[in-house]
Amino acid sequence: MKLWENNNNNHTNNNNKIEKFTAGEDVSLDQLLVKYDVIGSIAHAVMLQKIGILTQSELMDLKRALLEIIELDRKGQFKIEAWEEDAHTKIENYLTTKLGESGKKIHTGRSRNDQILVDLRLYTKEKLLKVQKNLLNLSNTLVVFSKENKSLPMPGYTHLQKAMPSSVDLWALSFVESLLDDLTFTKTAYNLNDQNPLGSAAGYGVPIDLDRELTTNLLDFKKTQNNVLYVQNSRGKIESIVLATLAQIMIDLSKLSNDLILFSTEEFGFFDIPEEFRTGSSIMPGKRNPDSLELIRARTNKVISYYSQAMNIIKDLPSGYSRDMQETKEPLLKGLDITNSCLEVMAPIINNLKANKERLEKSFSPEIFAADKTFKLVAQGFSFRDAYKEIERNLQRVELTSPEEIIKLRKSRGTSGDLGLDELEKRIKEELNFVKSKKEKFYQKIDTLIG
Amino acid sequence: MKLWENNNNNHTNNNNKIEKFTAGEDVSLDQLLVKYDVIGSIAHAVMLQKIGILTQSELMDLKRALLEIIELDRKGQFKIEAWEEDAHTKIENYLTTKLGESGKKIHTGRSRNDQILVDLRLYTKEKLLKVQKNLLNLSNTLVVFSKENKSLPMPGYTHLQKAMPSSVDLWALSFVESLLDDLTFTKTAYNLNDQNPLGSAAGYGVPIDLDRELTTNLLDFKKTQNNVLYVQNSRGKIESIVLATLAQIMIDLSKLSNDLILFSTEEFGFFDIPEEFRTGSSIMPGKRNPDSLELIRARTNKVISYYSQAMNIIKDLPSGYSRDMQETKEPLLKGLDITNSCLEVMAPIINNLKANKERLEKSFSPEIFAADKTFKLVAQGFSFRDAYKEIERNLQRVELTSPEEIIKLRKSRGTSGDLGLDELEKRIKEELNFVKSKKEKFYQKIDTLIG
Amino acid sequence: MKLWENNNNNHTNNNNKIEKFTAGEDVSLDQLLVKYDVIGSIAHAVMLQKIGILTQSELMDLKRALLEIIELDRKGQFKIEAWEEDAHTKIENYLTTKLGESGKKIHTGRSRNDQILVDLRLYTKEKLLKVQKNLLNLSNTLVVFSKENKSLPMPGYTHLQKAMPSSVDLWALSFVESLLDDLTFTKTAYNLNDQNPLGSAAGYGVPIDLDRELTTNLLDFKKTQNNVLYVQNSRGKIESIVLATLAQIMIDLSKLSNDLILFSTEEFGFFDIPEEFRTGSSIMPGKRNPDSLELIRARTNKVISYYSQAMNIIKDLPSGYSRDMQETKEPLLKGLDITNSCLEVMAPIINNLKANKERLEKSFSPEIFAADKTFKLVAQGFSFRDAYKEIERNLQRVELTSPEEIIKLRKSRGTSGDLGLDELEKRIKEELNFVKSKKEKFYQKIDTLIG
Amino acid sequence: MKLWENNNNNHTNNNNKIEKFTAGEDVSLDQLLVKYDVIGSIAHAVMLQKIGILTQSELMDLKRALLEIIELDRKGQFKIEAWEEDAHTKIENYLTTKLGESGKKIHTGRSRNDQILVDLRLYTKEKLLKVQKNLLNLSNTLVVFSKENKSLPMPGYTHLQKAMPSSVDLWALSFVESLLDDLTFTKTAYNLNDQNPLGSAAGYGVPIDLDRELTTNLLDFKKTQNNVLYVQNSRGKIESIVLATLAQIMIDLSKLSNDLILFSTEEFGFFDIPEEFRTGSSIMPGKRNPDSLELIRARTNKVISYYSQAMNIIKDLPSGYSRDMQETKEPLLKGLDITNSCLEVMAPIINNLKANKERLEKSFSPEIFAADKTFKLVAQGFSFRDAYKEIERNLQRVELTSPEEIIKLRKSRGTSGDLGLDELEKRIKEELNFVKSKKEKFYQKIDTLIG
Repeated sequence: MKLWENNNNNHTNNNNKIEKFTAGEDVSLDQLLVKYDVIGSIAHAVMLQKIGILTQSELMDLKRALLEIIELDRKGQFKIEAWEEDAHTKIENYLTTKLGESGKKIHTGRSRNDQILVDLRLYTKEKLLKVQKNLLNLSNTLVVFSKENKSLPMPGYTHLQKAMPSSVDLWALSFVESLLDDLTFTKTAYNLNDQNPLGSAAGYGVPIDLDRELTTNLLDFKKTQNNVLYVQNSRGKIESIVLATLAQIMIDLSKLSNDLILFSTEEFGFFDIPEEFRTGSSIMPGKRNPDSLELIRARTNKVISYYSQAMNIIKDLPSGYSRDMQETKEPLLKGLDITNSCLEVMAPIINNLKANKERLEKSFSPEIFAADKTFKLVAQGFSFRDAYKEIERNLQRVELTSPEEIIKLRKSRGTSGDLGLDELEKRIKEELNFVKSKKEKFYQKIDTLIG
Repeated sequence: MKLWENNNNNHTNNNNKIEKFTAGEDVSLDQLLVKYDVIGSIAHAVMLQKIGILTQSELMDLKRALLEIIELDRKGQFKIEAWEEDAHTKIENYLTTKLGESGKKIHTGRSRNDQILVDLRLYTKEKLLKVQKNLLNLSNTLVVFSKENKSLPMPGYTHLQKAMPSSVDLWALSFVESLLDDLTFTKTAYNLNDQNPLGSAAGYGVPIDLDRELTTNLLDFKKTQNNVLYVQNSRGKIESIVLATLAQIMIDLSKLSNDLILFSTEEFGFFDIPEEFRTGSSIMPGKRNPDSLELIRARTNKVISYYSQAMNIIKDLPSGYSRDMQETKEPLLKGLDITNSCLEVMAPIINNLKANKERLEKSFSPEIFAADKTFKLVAQGFSFRDAYKEIERNLQRVELTSPEEIIKLRKSRGTSGDLGLDELEKRIKEELNFVKSKKEKFYQKIDTLIG
Repeated sequence: MKLWENNNNNHTNNNNKIEKFTAGEDVSLDQLLVKYDVIGSIAHAVMLQKIGILTQSELMDLKRALLEIIELDRKGQFKIEAWEEDAHTKIENYLTTKLGESGKKIHTGRSRNDQILVDLRLYTKEKLLKVQKNLLNLSNTLVVFSKENKSLPMPGYTHLQKAMPSSVDLWALSFVESLLDDLTFTKTAYNLNDQNPLGSAAGYGVPIDLDRELTTNLLDFKKTQNNVLYVQNSRGKIESIVLATLAQIMIDLSKLSNDLILFSTEEFGFFDIPEEFRTGSSIMPGKRNPDSLELIRARTNKVISYYSQAMNIIKDLPSGYSRDMQETKEPLLKGLDITNSCLEVMAPIINNLKANKERLEKSFSPEIFAADKTFKLVAQGFSFRDAYKEIERNLQRVELTSPEEIIKLRKSRGTSGDLGLDELEKRIKEELNFVKSKKEKFYQKIDTLIG
Repeated sequence: MKLWENNNNNHTNNNNKIEKFTAGEDVSLDQLLVKYDVIGSIAHAVMLQKIGILTQSELMDLKRALLEIIELDRKGQFKIEAWEEDAHTKIENYLTTKLGESGKKIHTGRSRNDQILVDLRLYTKEKLLKVQKNLLNLSNTLVVFSKENKSLPMPGYTHLQKAMPSSVDLWALSFVESLLDDLTFTKTAYNLNDQNPLGSAAGYGVPIDLDRELTTNLLDFKKTQNNVLYVQNSRGKIESIVLATLAQIMIDLSKLSNDLILFSTEEFGFFDIPEEFRTGSSIMPGKRNPDSLELIRARTNKVISYYSQAMNIIKDLPSGYSRDMQETKEPLLKGLDITNSCLEVMAPIINNLKANKERLEKSFSPEIFAADKTFKLVAQGFSFRDAYKEIERNLQRVELTSPEEIIKLRKSRGTSGDLGLDELEKRIKEELNFVKSKKEKFYQKIDTLIG
């Protein structure tokens, strides 16, 4: 029975239909949140005991029963059904059935509105740390690839036309720097998510003096999210901010996929995508297609659209909780999942990627050296614009040059001659340590709470 | 084993990971398509027999085995697993295991690329007809509601400010006309979807003289989609066109939900939403919230974002099939499903909706009559602009009038006095017959094919 | 002075700021609508005369003064300023200043709400017919290009990997069929737009018996948009439907641009983009970049986002006019403009495009013939799947074949051997005639009205 | 003449058309960037002099001529025409015409690709600081409003249904906290934008040893954006990150607008929107509509769609500059402009907003106290769930209570009893100082550079 249901209500056929409609996919998503709901409930119970709502023995009972739920859930024996409404209701019902009175007290001073927010914030913390770690792993893989292909000449393109001499490591490290900017972006999202919503109840507080700072500490939140109405209004908002940062990562992966697909065509031939990441055709024998990369590219659009979903769902809601907010759960959870899986698939692809030195070299044609010739004239005293016009008039006379030699002439910062690899490696290492320590602290706090 | 797989390949750990990644949710979506894949396969087999690739007895064997699959699938005994890749592969493997040689012939002259397109087009036909029927049912319900509340005065709002006298039926029928425009829009989508892709193979045809018109006829397609490369390039395009039309329906439902939520607040009080479509709160006893309507509103954003997904996924792909296209399956299938379920939930809400006559009457305040007073002065010989200024200067003297009387003064077409109900009812009836006959013809053709 | 302004209001500084904010870019967009506002006003005046609100001589005066405005506007002497609010106000003020009493009568029975809708519908009619004509012109150009390159072999790609033999005309005509499906889509949008909103006033009608059918006829609308509240609620909706169809056209242009950019790279070399559609670099002498195509691709995203704008702006509005709707004007007007300009730029590009026969031929490598070899074994009695495996095992033995010969083996409908060119040409011709006759009828009606 | 143009090219009609198409609105947007282009050019020139490309006197000449351009531009006498291509070309042409040789040297070692990036980054810095200041001003205004209405009871809504007692200051400060989270988000965008792109040239560096750190310092960038290819690939990316943060601000403003529109209806009547921010109707005398708020709400969708534009435009581009990137200029510039203007309009609205105490008090009906009664039973020893059921069964007996008294019972953090106003005020003050000092430092650096 639902928490808010009248005793004398009959379950009619219409009710079942509505139940199915309102629960929708939400119930299966809630399954992923059971663990976090239990953790949040334990913190809430500890706080209730401290302010005198629960006795110590009631707290112990609740804690024991709640930990049983984690165990059952792990074994797949705590399956939420549509008629049970959601994870919160099922858990409260379990506690009440098991414990009687103390079960009926657990919901004192909270609403499902702040309860689900706690679940989502904890879930996001864990998954966003994983995103950051995966992002750094991929960065590392790209650094290794860059070192293996240090200063290996590669044409630089603009407008998909050969433009100027470049190198494989310049190309690969451009993605590393982009990913590191994304990392900065996700850290802000992480911090905005790292606010404790518990104690906001339905968005207007309760006439009980809850100790919100205590649960903030128990659950390893960085701060208490203060204004209780803002807590509710931030549902969907924090989600969309998180998704905005995931979208940027996905766009980087999409760009990388696109480059790899193009540069590994027979026509370009710069890279070989490892065999195990390609799949075949049902009609054309021998084809080996870069499906994984294509799927990363396609799923980028999913994550982008999850961002739109979360944002548009809440955009025009009046202040205070509305049921619409439930529907921001799917984009958040799936957005985190897709981003992690794509990062995890991209890393081994890069790890096994081979640059085709021969094809790269052969791809240098004379026109790619036109700009360099211009600068040669500048060095001889021409003004840049006159030099440009001189070369423009005599394009057919631009000769093929050694790409290796040309690459060596680039010396200023950020060019093939000075890619700042040491700094990048240092930063990646530091960031990895930072993520690791965040994660350890989080797990330690949770262990202490439920231990 | 996959159709394209080398015999000497080992399933490694990496392979499993990639399998899981590439299959993704696609495998569970494919489950919904098994029936249609079988139907398309039977049509293909009939055609292969006609052009001499299959013998009559091979055709009979294939047909029998394919119909077994429908039966197994109905009983939940044809579950596709990630390592089986997709519905097409599993079905071909089933046929080959069961029948040997004839199973190995079924794929002659087709590719999974055109095979999946057939499945999706057939699925879309069926579900889009259902959308149209549901849309017309809802329209009917709104018509009934309009008749029950004929000429019942209701304030007309602009800028959410009381503007001019209006009526409940004017309001309700405005949605009917909007839905009927949506219907027109979906019919175009229906027609564009109603093109047979079979025989396009991988997008470049095959060196066999397939009889494409035959399968077009067997599968009740309106026409053969001609250019084989366009067939492939239209994947995602037709999907996005279908979703664009669904989005319009959802926006209407969202607008209707919004109006209902607002007009049934305590503050407005014009309508009472039936109890069984409201849900309660876990913390506030007695609350009854319009959750179903809020979810319709929220899910509108999902359908809109499915449209963006489908469109953005294919937007920048080169001509010819890319694996990205697989990811347009989820938005299409879910978009159709959400639209149907929302239409099906809205109809009983309207069917049980009550207009609160007393509150509606009480809501008429003098300023709402200002424009009517202006027209009274016009009738007395004032120019409109002078009359307007006269009333503007003497707003406090505008008196309360009987809304019923005022409503009666509206006579021109489309106003409360002449809502064109008969025409609307006639159109709805005709459209329902049209949809019904389309559906019957479709089912009859399929019955003949598989009979 | 504004129509609704109190005489004793002082223009304060704050007012100016708000004026600027509310008018925004809207005033410059309104400039484009002056002509249509005048035409709609003449039709309204003719109707007012018929129902006795205006005398024949007042009508003549109004008509004369309104035609002066068209003349002034054509000469750039009717510039709307932010403080004049909008086109409607400026025009009414002009009439009142010029004519006195009859000017004050023109607004009888209408609101700026239905007035702007008339303007937008007329504008859209004209520009959408232009879109259709431009689309058909481009289709024609692609047909001509296809004939020039009939059966010229070109590799067919899937996953951007060489897949099967194809031809230049198969490729080019795939876009024609896609554009023709878009045309069907725009025709529905055209019809939904072709409804007369005049007489709906502010969305609740007026207590005057307007003859709405008359203005429908005078302005060449296909039908009167009936329910007056739906008329208002359809603002933004019709816009978004129009934009959805424009988005599909743009996506086709984007795909075509993408293919052209890729296939004209040095690496592919299949096509040469005409020199006058390329631009250079400020630093690299000799570069010639396909900027026009890149801009078409980029602007596709603008049109797509205009669709989102229009739809999201109105999605959650309550029934009845809200000022938000004004902001759907920009996406509509710019969407139509961009689509037309991109179609007009693409046509001459295709018209001057050259296929590079030599590069196309050289690009055929043995693996592209694997599927054809498979079908050869099928013809020899192998089952398809066994033949596939046989070829898969012996890929290195697949030999280079003459692409011309291979292309000739494709005979079934829609393949390189039977592209249905005659039907396409016939359809394009018929559609061009249809568009032309629509346009002529429209212009004739307007000429009669203002003549 | 364009920088890259061949001398013997003729301006044909087609060329003009293409010119117009490629320049598009870009030329008018470039006008806004002239000032920044000059500043970036001066920094580049200073650097060129330092590394020996320019003499001291050439530098002085260039600087003088560049400052003339700022002056001309300020007076509206430096208008870029479509045939002049863009700001960069026009400026170089001006310098060359004016100075001869030294003008021809200014472009040494840079490309328009990095030049435009400098312009955009500087522009964004300035405008984003303005956004931050405007955001803080609005926050301050909301704080003042909260103090004026301290603990003034207001119903708290969930699902747009009266839920629990709340207060006007709780409501108002919820927006302040949301805006401050947005501020955090914009600061990340600010930092990611604060990277010097100059010296990346066309994305592959130049064979000259540019001193990139010097221009970073001269232009007050926080760091040099290192990898030269990433610099190019970050175009559109940084833009979309900036726009993602602007979108969040706009969503807050939209939510605030929505609440204000609803709560100031006759039906709710909680707030009175100041007269000067309302506009009238052309047909209904006396109407005063909240147009400014509606426009803020509508324009939120514009900013959101600008984000999509920027992101989708670059999403699938290959590495390296493509002309598509030009089209990200409009969304960035307009997004910044709209956000600033909406913040600037919202502040005076809040500043003049009146809470209607009488209507607020009258709006409290008994059911709003149900949850509080439940907690009263909890205090009497009931378990929460039993208390809830008790009240649910006896809803009709819940009595009206004094809202003021009920409000006082809320004591825990973030509720009406402890809103943390001091902390908020402190933070706003600190942030204002931070923004102010950033701005001063920026202006000082630029002054030094051009002084």
